[in-house]
Amino acid sequence: MQTLAIRGGRVLRPDMTVTEADVLVDREGGDIVEIGPDLDGDETLDATDGLVMPGLVNAHTHVAMTLLRGYADDKPLETWLREDIWPVEAALEPADIEAGAELGMVEMIRSGTTAFADMYFEIDRTAAAVDRAGTRAVLGHGAISAGKDDEAARADIEESVAMAAQVDGAADGRVSGAVMPHSLTTVTPELLEFAAERAHEKGVPVHYHANETRDEVDPIVDERDQRPLAWARDLGLCGNDDFFAHGVHLDDSEIDLLAETGTGVVHCPASNMKLASGMAPVQRLLDAGATVGLGTDGAASNNDLDLFDEMRDAAMLGKLAADDASAVAAPDAVRMATAGGADVLGLDTGRLEPGAAADIAVVDFDAPHLTPGHDLVSHLAYAVRGSDVRHTVCDGDILMRDREVLTLDEEAVVERAAERARALVERAE
Amino acid sequence: MQTLAIRGGRVLRPDMTVTEADVLVDREGGDIVEIGPDLDGDETLDATDGLVMPGLVNAHTHVAMTLLRGYADDKPLETWLREDIWPVEAALEPADIEAGAELGMVEMIRSGTTAFADMYFEIDRTAAAVDRAGTRAVLGHGAISAGKDDEAARADIEESVAMAAQVDGAADGRVSGAVMPHSLTTVTPELLEFAAERAHEKGVPVHYHANETRDEVDPIVDERDQRPLAWARDLGLCGNDDFFAHGVHLDDSEIDLLAETGTGVVHCPASNMKLASGMAPVQRLLDAGATVGLGTDGAASNNDLDLFDEMRDAAMLGKLAADDASAVAAPDAVRMATAGGADVLGLDTGRLEPGAAADIAVVDFDAPHLTPGHDLVSHLAYAVRGSDVRHTVCDGDILMRDREVLTLDEEAVVERAAERARALVERAE
Repeated sequence: MQTLAIRGGRVLRPDMTVTEADVLVDREGGDIVEIGPDLDGDETLDATDGLVMPGLVNAHTHVAMTLLRGYADDKPLETWLREDIWPVEAALEPADIEAGAELGMVEMIRSGTTAFADMYFEIDRTAAAVDRAGTRAVLGHGAISAGKDDEAARADIEESVAMAAQVDGAADGRVSGAVMPHSLTTVTPELLEFAAERAHEKGVPVHYHANETRDEVDPIVDERDQRPLAWARDLGLCGNDDFFAHGVHLDDSEIDLLAETGTGVVHCPASNMKLASGMAPVQRLLDAGATVGLGTDGAASNNDLDLFDEMRDAAMLGKLAADDASAVAAPDAVRMATAGGADVLGLDTGRLEPGAAADIAVVDFDAPHLTPGHDLVSHLAYAVRGSDVRHTVCDGDILMRDREVLTLDEEAVVERAAERARALVERAE
Repeated sequence: MQTLAIRGGRVLRPDMTVTEADVLVDREGGDIVEIGPDLDGDETLDATDGLVMPGLVNAHTHVAMTLLRGYADDKPLETWLREDIWPVEAALEPADIEAGAELGMVEMIRSGTTAFADMYFEIDRTAAAVDRAGTRAVLGHGAISAGKDDEAARADIEESVAMAAQVDGAADGRVSGAVMPHSLTTVTPELLEFAAERAHEKGVPVHYHANETRDEVDPIVDERDQRPLAWARDLGLCGNDDFFAHGVHLDDSEIDLLAETGTGVVHCPASNMKLASGMAPVQRLLDAGATVGLGTDGAASNNDLDLFDEMRDAAMLGKLAADDASAVAAPDAVRMATAGGADVLGLDTGRLEPGAAADIAVVDFDAPHLTPGHDLVSHLAYAVRGSDVRHTVCDGDILMRDREVLTLDEEAVVERAAERARALVERAE
């Protein structure tokens, strides 16, 4: 057994306590062997002045959209999609997807994220980038019916089903597939039902957008006299493995339904604020026992992929939503970004304990903005930034050591992404 | 004339456009001489791949409270103040104030903030720290009547008046004084009026908290049948030089009053979210022509002093408050953090133009999370973090070069603050 010892730091335990300990990793098996004092390994990562924590889980993003970071801001969702995002996306080439995915993965590795769920196109390109980057991902082809005839819409869903099977198990098993119909309002009811059936036959999850804006909720309620997620359950979209993004506008019956069915909810606070979608009832979801993770959404509506930002936003916005400063406390935010996201995606990560996946971030606490150290969990939620991450490990492999990304050539990735973004915008305009 | 040239970068102009240019600074006069191509100086700062922007203005904070960062979180304002913050503050020693102020200043310099307004105690200690750090500040002793007898309450306000005069002009003129009655509800009406009279006799501003929570607004409306800021104007607290923090709960008549009188409003979005105080009507304030700056508030309710976080929060929360994704656009957020804050504090800073103070931050854009560079102003608001600041200049002096703070010994400051924070909490508990 080739081992890696992460030594000299403190460790964030699954119960959100912090203790001094080393972490021993089986590099080949890719899991954690032991957590305790004085552990030696074949290789060592120095965690002095640091906190060893689970690698973060970004449970909803569109990673290639890093190419559109800052391309169009400060517009309502519908206008932004129709006038800016969709026209540029129509001009995307497969190599753009790969360049954007690599850029996003460099950003995620640098900020301690080791797993993500991604809905986009040309997902074999994203899978190839994940393979090189060394991260973990749930990938799916986002299928839309809106604007397509029946045949094209069905072909799009069928592509989503086929791609889920194709990428499942890629990158030495670090990639899994999911069927991803875009949303409850942009895919026909027949195709939503079809997507769920096929996904469950193949044993992969369904992932979609739901209840993001009032404009998505009201038409369903008006037409069907049923809340959107009750209808989604009837269509087969609310299983224990399935998950959806946003859930901004949920009533109590939907919250109960989500908790009962184990359907994963991915809270995307920055995107919900930036697009003025509203405030998700996060404390109520947690109180009901729902499975809740955090997502950055795409970089075009955030505008970064830094889960530390998202924890802070989740804790802060959750308090406003609940009109209660004690809501969504720091440990809740950290749990959503780690174990919560892992549970949403069905991955054995997000908790540091023997036998769990060795997906790890080491955060450097020797910094003025993290002084004094009254409460490190508070700092994780409110004061740490992605740039405080010193080392990142996934599946037992070191992806970043002392802030240097080892698996991708950062300079080349940044240069290629900048060039492709320039050319993409020129083609689209 | 000893000159400093900031070369090779792009420059953020007061109209929020970005052009390639160098910036020439008169180091002795402390102002900007010229902005244009190919400028040489006696000394040079390299701005390659960077954006040269005005030093940020933190228009409301309690800088020594960095010692309480993460000490108590996730509690409602009243409970948090009474159970956690005030008991610890009662145990503060003057050397704690100085240690906390230095820690806060290192954090501000590192994140590009060159001017701040501070309400606290022992402000001569803060002034001494400002002198060493090389920043600019408006300082005032925060006076409270609540919990004091008449004599002690009057003595406290008199101390605020005396201290404003004492610190005014300190640190080679970089410190100015202000009279700071704590808030409209924690200081008696007589003493609020007295504070305003004395401040204006001495030609210094009044600074206070107002309309932060509904619990502060409703009693004034009930008792006086008058909105709090109309009453504040009657007491003399709404002059062109005066400014207050928060303004979360404002009606249209108050917004108009603030615009007409030129009273400065300091928006503190992170604090307002963390304490669940509410959402300030920022877009309505801007539309009315009010003078609006940004503040981090104290690190205990934020939990950092990073104005880049505050810009992002202001842009995002402003959209939710307006229910409009086009509200508080990126340039508005950047303007509030620079020229807006300078106007609130009455300082000739916050704009890069010849004759203005040479208070400057250089932001490094060569980073994965700032790629591609479609729109640098968008990046300033949404994607830049404090750690992206490469150089900081104030009053013509270099406070940080290549991320190394030159005016304070960062390691010693961090160590002293950590020690004093530990001892403070032990004394208080």
